[in-house]
Amino acid sequence: MAEGMVVRGLRRVRTLLADGGATRSLEGKQLVRIRDLLHECASGIGGEVSARQRAGRLAETYLRLNDEGRASFLRIVATEFGPDPELVAKAHADYQEAIGSDAQWTAESALRNAMRSARLRILTQFNALSHGVKFLVDLRADLLRFVEKDAALRSLDRELESRLGAWFDVGFLELQRITWSSPAALLEKLIEYEAVHQIRSWSDLKNRLDSDRRCYAFFHPRMPMEPLIFVEVALTEHLADNVQTLLDEHAPVFDAHRANTAIFYSISNTQVGLRGVSFGNFLLKRVVDDLKRDYPRLVNFATLSPLPSFRHWAEKNPESWPHAFSAADLERIKRHLTPEMPQLADASDLSKLLADARWMTDARLARALQHGLLRLAARYLLTTSKGGRPYDPVARFHLGNGARIERLNYLADTSARGQQQSYGLMVNYLYDPDTIEANVEAFSRSGEIAAAAAIRRSARD
Amino acid sequence: MAEGMVVRGLRRVRTLLADGGATRSLEGKQLVRIRDLLHECASGIGGEVSARQRAGRLAETYLRLNDEGRASFLRIVATEFGPDPELVAKAHADYQEAIGSDAQWTAESALRNAMRSARLRILTQFNALSHGVKFLVDLRADLLRFVEKDAALRSLDRELESRLGAWFDVGFLELQRITWSSPAALLEKLIEYEAVHQIRSWSDLKNRLDSDRRCYAFFHPRMPMEPLIFVEVALTEHLADNVQTLLDEHAPVFDAHRANTAIFYSISNTQVGLRGVSFGNFLLKRVVDDLKRDYPRLVNFATLSPLPSFRHWAEKNPESWPHAFSAADLERIKRHLTPEMPQLADASDLSKLLADARWMTDARLARALQHGLLRLAARYLLTTSKGGRPYDPVARFHLGNGARIERLNYLADTSARGQQQSYGLMVNYLYDPDTIEANVEAFSRSGEIAAAAAIRRSARD
Amino acid sequence: MAEGMVVRGLRRVRTLLADGGATRSLEGKQLVRIRDLLHECASGIGGEVSARQRAGRLAETYLRLNDEGRASFLRIVATEFGPDPELVAKAHADYQEAIGSDAQWTAESALRNAMRSARLRILTQFNALSHGVKFLVDLRADLLRFVEKDAALRSLDRELESRLGAWFDVGFLELQRITWSSPAALLEKLIEYEAVHQIRSWSDLKNRLDSDRRCYAFFHPRMPMEPLIFVEVALTEHLADNVQTLLDEHAPVFDAHRANTAIFYSISNTQVGLRGVSFGNFLLKRVVDDLKRDYPRLVNFATLSPLPSFRHWAEKNPESWPHAFSAADLERIKRHLTPEMPQLADASDLSKLLADARWMTDARLARALQHGLLRLAARYLLTTSKGGRPYDPVARFHLGNGARIERLNYLADTSARGQQQSYGLMVNYLYDPDTIEANVEAFSRSGEIAAAAAIRRSARD
Amino acid sequence: MAEGMVVRGLRRVRTLLADGGATRSLEGKQLVRIRDLLHECASGIGGEVSARQRAGRLAETYLRLNDEGRASFLRIVATEFGPDPELVAKAHADYQEAIGSDAQWTAESALRNAMRSARLRILTQFNALSHGVKFLVDLRADLLRFVEKDAALRSLDRELESRLGAWFDVGFLELQRITWSSPAALLEKLIEYEAVHQIRSWSDLKNRLDSDRRCYAFFHPRMPMEPLIFVEVALTEHLADNVQTLLDEHAPVFDAHRANTAIFYSISNTQVGLRGVSFGNFLLKRVVDDLKRDYPRLVNFATLSPLPSFRHWAEKNPESWPHAFSAADLERIKRHLTPEMPQLADASDLSKLLADARWMTDARLARALQHGLLRLAARYLLTTSKGGRPYDPVARFHLGNGARIERLNYLADTSARGQQQSYGLMVNYLYDPDTIEANVEAFSRSGEIAAAAAIRRSARD
Repeated sequence: MAEGMVVRGLRRVRTLLADGGATRSLEGKQLVRIRDLLHECASGIGGEVSARQRAGRLAETYLRLNDEGRASFLRIVATEFGPDPELVAKAHADYQEAIGSDAQWTAESALRNAMRSARLRILTQFNALSHGVKFLVDLRADLLRFVEKDAALRSLDRELESRLGAWFDVGFLELQRITWSSPAALLEKLIEYEAVHQIRSWSDLKNRLDSDRRCYAFFHPRMPMEPLIFVEVALTEHLADNVQTLLDEHAPVFDAHRANTAIFYSISNTQVGLRGVSFGNFLLKRVVDDLKRDYPRLVNFATLSPLPSFRHWAEKNPESWPHAFSAADLERIKRHLTPEMPQLADASDLSKLLADARWMTDARLARALQHGLLRLAARYLLTTSKGGRPYDPVARFHLGNGARIERLNYLADTSARGQQQSYGLMVNYLYDPDTIEANVEAFSRSGEIAAAAAIRRSARD
Repeated sequence: MAEGMVVRGLRRVRTLLADGGATRSLEGKQLVRIRDLLHECASGIGGEVSARQRAGRLAETYLRLNDEGRASFLRIVATEFGPDPELVAKAHADYQEAIGSDAQWTAESALRNAMRSARLRILTQFNALSHGVKFLVDLRADLLRFVEKDAALRSLDRELESRLGAWFDVGFLELQRITWSSPAALLEKLIEYEAVHQIRSWSDLKNRLDSDRRCYAFFHPRMPMEPLIFVEVALTEHLADNVQTLLDEHAPVFDAHRANTAIFYSISNTQVGLRGVSFGNFLLKRVVDDLKRDYPRLVNFATLSPLPSFRHWAEKNPESWPHAFSAADLERIKRHLTPEMPQLADASDLSKLLADARWMTDARLARALQHGLLRLAARYLLTTSKGGRPYDPVARFHLGNGARIERLNYLADTSARGQQQSYGLMVNYLYDPDTIEANVEAFSRSGEIAAAAAIRRSARD
Repeated sequence: MAEGMVVRGLRRVRTLLADGGATRSLEGKQLVRIRDLLHECASGIGGEVSARQRAGRLAETYLRLNDEGRASFLRIVATEFGPDPELVAKAHADYQEAIGSDAQWTAESALRNAMRSARLRILTQFNALSHGVKFLVDLRADLLRFVEKDAALRSLDRELESRLGAWFDVGFLELQRITWSSPAALLEKLIEYEAVHQIRSWSDLKNRLDSDRRCYAFFHPRMPMEPLIFVEVALTEHLADNVQTLLDEHAPVFDAHRANTAIFYSISNTQVGLRGVSFGNFLLKRVVDDLKRDYPRLVNFATLSPLPSFRHWAEKNPESWPHAFSAADLERIKRHLTPEMPQLADASDLSKLLADARWMTDARLARALQHGLLRLAARYLLTTSKGGRPYDPVARFHLGNGARIERLNYLADTSARGQQQSYGLMVNYLYDPDTIEANVEAFSRSGEIAAAAAIRRSARD
Repeated sequence: MAEGMVVRGLRRVRTLLADGGATRSLEGKQLVRIRDLLHECASGIGGEVSARQRAGRLAETYLRLNDEGRASFLRIVATEFGPDPELVAKAHADYQEAIGSDAQWTAESALRNAMRSARLRILTQFNALSHGVKFLVDLRADLLRFVEKDAALRSLDRELESRLGAWFDVGFLELQRITWSSPAALLEKLIEYEAVHQIRSWSDLKNRLDSDRRCYAFFHPRMPMEPLIFVEVALTEHLADNVQTLLDEHAPVFDAHRANTAIFYSISNTQVGLRGVSFGNFLLKRVVDDLKRDYPRLVNFATLSPLPSFRHWAEKNPESWPHAFSAADLERIKRHLTPEMPQLADASDLSKLLADARWMTDARLARALQHGLLRLAARYLLTTSKGGRPYDPVARFHLGNGARIERLNYLADTSARGQQQSYGLMVNYLYDPDTIEANVEAFSRSGEIAAAAAIRRSARD
């Protein structure tokens, strides 16, 4: 897939690749040649203009390599173009000596200079490619895959992450509305990148861009047809509780000017190579501002979000089920089991019952399961954690942005994926302008989670 | 002036300043408050969104300060938000110990992390202002003024320079043609920024954008109406030898499609705050490409450039005159002196004669001076140096880019400024695509200067 | 369908129609009210601004009517707002009397004034709708349907045609390239409007916009998302002879810069209401210019066109078959017939054999039919006529534009439609810049048809 | 001037003209050749594409002619390409006979056909020039000058006016805001075209585009850099009473968001050739809508207008002065006369006193004249007429659009022009949304003039 991402947009290279190029690893002679070219790049011999052009050719070489070749290439960059430890030691000694004196600040600069590696110089020269920024983002995606096996790439990865962080500063990003009048080449990317609720067809997409919907994305000025992150919004008059209803192409179009609620029902990050560079919270902020300007009646801003790790967590923590399902619950459930279903010794057996989706289509069984599942989910959201922060990644994102857990919705995503991730449950996170700041602070200071009273009660039961 | 630059484009602040704000220095209480705000900024308390908003308000405070206040403000940032020397020492020890082992690369990253200061974090949060990038460029201009008197700002200046260097990577710059159909608000900037041959009026400007002229500039996507550097080009059929002729509004328009020569007669850097970030050479390269595409007949690409330090050098080096002016020259010159002119004992007295512009208007006297002055200038260009590179800053730029000194032109700029800088001499630097690369390398390796044979001979005489 | 066309783009009205409005006919009271409104419109009472606004409301009323209602509405406009015959008679008498005198030209103007009807005044006021021009084009489409049954609409239709002709003067049309980066809302229209070779899916469309294809359309500045006419072009290195091959999504992409031939394989007029307003020839001219600029190697400009009426003509003219199929041909064909196929008494029975598409899939039978069918088609193109011009409408268009019939292609469109229209035959019309003018003149003067020698020979046999 | 207008924007022709071409008249041989070309154009021989190209060349010939040559050229078009009187007679007879029968509508169409001349066909083919529409507008300006001396051009002028009327239908015009960020090439046109209060410099212009000002223009899609009509608006908090104050570059900028009043202080038609095609009223309507959207606090929309014919009328109607100036007024005035001023026998001598501007600068004299002059102006506006409509052309325009005469302002335009046109008086016309429609109707039905009570009283006194 990363392959695919690199290729996209690089026309000329695509042609190269079509010749079968991208399967090559780096062999002896070529390795030598590339090492030479890299040293030439780093040295800056010749003018800057021709240096960039040479770097551009080197970048094309990179694109023709297979994973093994690329890993070797990056290893050379990572290990042979770092700072010189002796120069660093010298500069560090001067720095420490200068502490407190007037010379401290110049010495600090000198130490920083000694730490400066040629790696970044090489990589940023790759900008000479017409899609250079995208190239580097995709190269970072490669790095992220390789670094897990090769710690020598660590420093290079961090330097590149830091540079991408500078380039993708939110001050440089452009918020754009995406509509049915946007270029097809761009809309096609949405279909490809949508990570939450798959876009099944062009008519599904068109429905998501109809007059009661909004779609926004952040773009970087040098990656014009590449949304970095995008959010899909539905304008409604109530807190949406079911995503299939929301995405129903045959549902009538709602008059957006009567809407009081904006539902953010899908947020997708698109660039693997930008991991560690965050702009999702700015996106939501800007989108809320834009919506308010166009629809002054809007008062509620909420999500309809998945709980992507709920089932995974529940299956790994069988001891949590009995807290959520009372004996009476269990009795009621048993009454609706059919013979071919797994039989229940105790509550922790429920995960076997829920392993496939049949229960969803049996209304009475589903009703019997409802309270217990909601309670289990409330506990999952409010009490589980990982490294001191909520276990659920989506909860982490929204709570960190100042949202409140507003409501849990039962049978809210009955797709295979919904059943797979969260037994069909979804959650509304509410962004209440009056409490966002306080929530952010409480959450970042002490991990305190904002939640509606009902959720809180349900978790406590 | 830097004041003016900061203000430009910051509407809201302009209004603030109109209230007389920008005269304030930082007094006791305010200093405390600002220090608190800065620490808050650096800590990242609260969400990133509100952090940026707070930083935006802090940036506005900065704009209201006078120079004294700003210097104090920046000193706080520079000295109180640097890295912690003890953490640096610790990380450095780990790093040196890890050299050669697998842990080296992670240790390097950790050292780099320890070196990371909160200064940049504070400054880049200022991007929350709607003209944040321009704000930071102008803040750097302030820094450059202050750093001369206050070495404590050195490290901050270098960090900011490095960040601006990342942001203004040529890969992010847009080449745009500027024409008479460009926004007036943009053209007004050319009038303001033109640093070589002053634009006297809108009709002078219009003439420079006529069909036998071209003007190009680099722009940054987040400073849309601010040219970073621009070049003015005349399309002609010969190497231009006089700038007043070139700028004559009443001269007939030349049919550009018959042109074989492009004369770059003015190149202006506009942003003081981007000192150290270079893109001039890329500009010329891109402009040449664009011109070639539109005018396939063009074969010569040359400048008509000033020698900004020639007279200054000549006056400081009286011993150089006798080398350039022979006794016969001197005799011929004396013959045309009027009584009220300074009388000449020897050649070094010539600088007194040339101190005011009267000689230029006496055709015979001017002719008598011609050979000596040209010889003096040839020596100046070919033999003088400063830190191992040519003494003349314009020569430094063009020779570093691979140009050749092609011709010296006598009485080529008869304006007060021309007389003031270079006794009216100008020079054509020629960009010959066939020799650029070789010139760049010879120049960067051994300081070798490419020059036409005639110039070379003249310097040798 | 015309209904559909009216609705498109008129958002607000769409909502009205969704309420079931468009089924109404004009009943008594409403008829009276509309007549009153029309008279008010015509009178110009009140300022022009409010007059237009009133007319806009009337136009919306029109959109809510069903066909019967619209026909009544237009009949009122046509018959009650014409010129006054008595005033015309008076002005005409004055005019005839003034002939030859100085007063003639003023009298002519006066007569023209008297002829001026209020109909057009009413209709053009409908421009007050935000999609007014599209509204009038669609209203003309209605008129064209109604006028066949109601001659009273004739004069109105002609006046509207003439006004649309003025508005859609080619000088006002914009040639635009359509690419995969065009708005999806526009591309969707291509799918809807393509009249020659149906676009089956978005991926079929994307293939037609790939780098070895071009698509161009004319637009009117006031109908921004409505292509008026569009042409699809394939860049190849030979005269294409099969449309299925051309449209094969899985065929490799050709390097367009190596192309010497541009094949116009589909030209679609999209606006029924612009019948009588021609711009197709200008489109081809402009497209050829644009292609030449981008691909200087292109030397051949040709179509791959259907013969839409060939089979219809052949079935109606059984006597023409024996001229095309010799006895020997017939014998060869008989040899490959299977029992369940119709048996042949003579050549005119062939049309029964060809009635369904089975013969196409029998290679030997198809080969036996080839020469006869090609001869029949050559005779059809060169010798049949209707009102003095070629019988085939596509031939009429291209020959009128100066093209030459270059080649007939066998089994060139094996789709159901190709079999249905022309037994799978297609034709290449060649636009040879050197002969276009002469062809146009010979054709318009004496109906002379330009054709390659081989075609001419084949028709003569 | 018309010369100048034609030339503008026609680059290629400008070059031709620079060769001295535009001084030619049409001589014998050329006249014959042009006549032939015109007949060829009219006949439509050859395809339409090449016909247009030929016409383009003919249009260029026209541009090279001097006035005499152009008049001859147009005379040929006007007199030799009209309808055929015999065919008209025949068609007219058929038409009259068909009245009342089913054939009437076809016969009407046939008559209209017979009336159709080739003149327009020739002229509109001139659209083949890249600035064809502008060419025709300028050609109409020529026609308007010539037709006064040559009635034979009447019919051609009317046909062209009618066609331009169709092309410049308000539905096709684009309202654009003009700002300091508009292209300089466009702003230059404002300077050239401003017809009411001359724009003295680029800084005067910039001041008129500052944040408390607005400027709007109508454009035609095929004349992109040519404003057709433009209006300058000041945002204030009171009814402006002095135009020099309004245009003072040194006045502080007003915070537009506090404005309650929009003053339209200058409206200029720019295209002489569009005389008879009106869109001024639509412009005001659209501008008011746009202003309201951006500044919801605006409640008053008014002009500050000249009385261009006031003085001219007053001087021609000496008998009106005594009605306006009482004996007491006269006495007061006499008291302030200096010896060198004209002495006053009676009120009608006042026009001599006011003939030069000295009185304006004598505060006491000016005060003595105030009431009488205001009364005279009120009578002028409310009681004088020309062809049943107000004598003053600006009053005609605004009253016809539904405005009310709100206030007369004394010493409101003290420029030479203001003194020259109206003894320095200006008038505010108020556009009150609540009464516009009623005003328009009363004015168009019975010529009733809406005016504030004070004005009405003043006129009655």
